[in-house]
Amino acid sequence: MRSEADALAIEEPLEIRFAGKRFTLTMRTPGHDEELAAGFLLAEGFIRSRTEIDEIRRVIDRKGHAEPNAIDVILKVPADAIRQRMRRNFTISSSCGVCGKTSIESLMRRIEPVQSAMKVRGVTISSLPARMRTAQEAFAATGGLHAAALFDPAGTVHVIREDVGRHNAVDKAIGWAVFAGKLPLDETLLMVSGRLSFEIVQKAAVAGIAIVAAVSAPSSLAVELGEESGVTLIGFLRESGFNVYTHPERVKV
Amino acid sequence: MRSEADALAIEEPLEIRFAGKRFTLTMRTPGHDEELAAGFLLAEGFIRSRTEIDEIRRVIDRKGHAEPNAIDVILKVPADAIRQRMRRNFTISSSCGVCGKTSIESLMRRIEPVQSAMKVRGVTISSLPARMRTAQEAFAATGGLHAAALFDPAGTVHVIREDVGRHNAVDKAIGWAVFAGKLPLDETLLMVSGRLSFEIVQKAAVAGIAIVAAVSAPSSLAVELGEESGVTLIGFLRESGFNVYTHPERVKV
Repeated sequence: MRSEADALAIEEPLEIRFAGKRFTLTMRTPGHDEELAAGFLLAEGFIRSRTEIDEIRRVIDRKGHAEPNAIDVILKVPADAIRQRMRRNFTISSSCGVCGKTSIESLMRRIEPVQSAMKVRGVTISSLPARMRTAQEAFAATGGLHAAALFDPAGTVHVIREDVGRHNAVDKAIGWAVFAGKLPLDETLLMVSGRLSFEIVQKAAVAGIAIVAAVSAPSSLAVELGEESGVTLIGFLRESGFNVYTHPERVKV
Repeated sequence: MRSEADALAIEEPLEIRFAGKRFTLTMRTPGHDEELAAGFLLAEGFIRSRTEIDEIRRVIDRKGHAEPNAIDVILKVPADAIRQRMRRNFTISSSCGVCGKTSIESLMRRIEPVQSAMKVRGVTISSLPARMRTAQEAFAATGGLHAAALFDPAGTVHVIREDVGRHNAVDKAIGWAVFAGKLPLDETLLMVSGRLSFEIVQKAAVAGIAIVAAVSAPSSLAVELGEESGVTLIGFLRESGFNVYTHPERVKV
C-alpha cells in the first residue's frame, strides 16, 4: 500500500458565457479554454467557422482581474439566428420516438456528410499510437489525462490536446483548427486515447474530419453515425493492427 | 489490418422526463434505465430517497407501445420544492468567482459529509479488481463498457452495472441502492473501472458512500472533494497495491 500523492490531472470548472449570459459549465483541465469553447460551439451547431466568432474573452471580476475559469463568447451572428440554432439543437424530431436513428437524423439535418478523397496507408495508421505517445509527455506523469490529436495523411501531428475529459480534449483539438482557419478537416485524421462514443464522432463529422481512430472500441451508435456521416472509424488501434468499422476505402493496405 | 465487426457496446439515447416534460437526454447502454434515472436525480439533488419517487414509468407512444428510450419520473415532492431544488442545483455562488472551491461549497451546502466507522482490510481492497472482473463477463466481449460495482466491507459484491458512460454506470449502481432502500451507503465501497472525476465523487458523496476505488487516477478536484465530503479515495488499484488519497483511516493494513 502506498499513500503518497502522485501527480494528479488538474480538474477545474469552466463557465462558458454567451454575450455575458451563462451558457454552460464544464469540468475541464485548465488551458486552451478559448479552443475548448470554439470546438464545443462548433460541435453543437452554434458557430460554423472562425469568421462567426467576434471575440472570446476572459470575464473580468469586480476587482478588475481576469477570471481564470470563466470566458465570454461574442458572436457576429444575429441574435435571432442564434436563437434558431439553439432551438434546432435542443429539438429532436420524434415521429418515430427517441432512438439512435433520430439522434443521427437530427445531426444530419444540420451538417453535410464528410466528403474526402484522402487515403492513408495502413502502416501510417498503425504508427499513430507511438506518434501520439511521443507528443504526450504529461500522460505518463499523471495517468489521469485523455488526449486527442490531429494528424495529416503522412502521420505528422498538427496538434495534441489533453484534458481530464475525453470530449474536452477533442473540442480543444478541433477548436485549435477553428482558430487556425483549417475547417473543414477533410485531409485530417483525429486520434483519441479512449473509446469512440456517438458524441466524439458527432464532433468529428461537424468539423469534416475524414478518419477517426481510437485505442479502444467504438459504440454501436458511433458506428451508425460514422456510416451515415461519411467518417471512417478505426478502433482497437495497435501497432500490430486495427479494426475498420466504416468507410474502409480511405485505408490503403 | 482486420475489418470484421467485433461485438460493440450498445449506445442509445435515453430521454428522462419530469412529470411529462423533457428534463434531459443522455447517451447510455440500454437496461436498468429506472436505476439510471433514480441515481442521476439523487446525485443532482432532485430526490433524497426512494420515498420521494412516486413512479418511474415508460413513456407510451401514440400506438400504445412503451418507448424503449424514454421514461417519465413522477415525484411525491411538491412542485415548488422541485423548483427550489432545481434553482439551487443550477446556481453556483460566485462571491470568489468560478473555481473548484465554489463547486465543492455548492455541493456541501446541500449534503452532509459522509459519516462512517467502516474499516476495510488492504488485502480486501487489493482483491476488488479480480472480484469485479469475475462479475463482468461483458467487458471482455465488447471492450467498450465501463463498470461500477458496490461491495460490502468483506469484498462481497452487491451489484455491478455497466454502461458506455462511466457516470451512467455509477448512476445505475447507486440507483439500484435507492430502490433497494439502502441509503446512505456508509458501509459500502464503490469501485469504478476508469478514472475518478469530480462528478463521480459527487455521486458517491451524495449517496453517503464511505470508500471509492478506481483502477486509474483521480483528478485534483476529485481529491479536494473527497477530502471535504468525507469520502476515502483510492486510485491506481492493482492486486499489488494502491494509492490512498483521502481519509486513510478507513484502510486497515
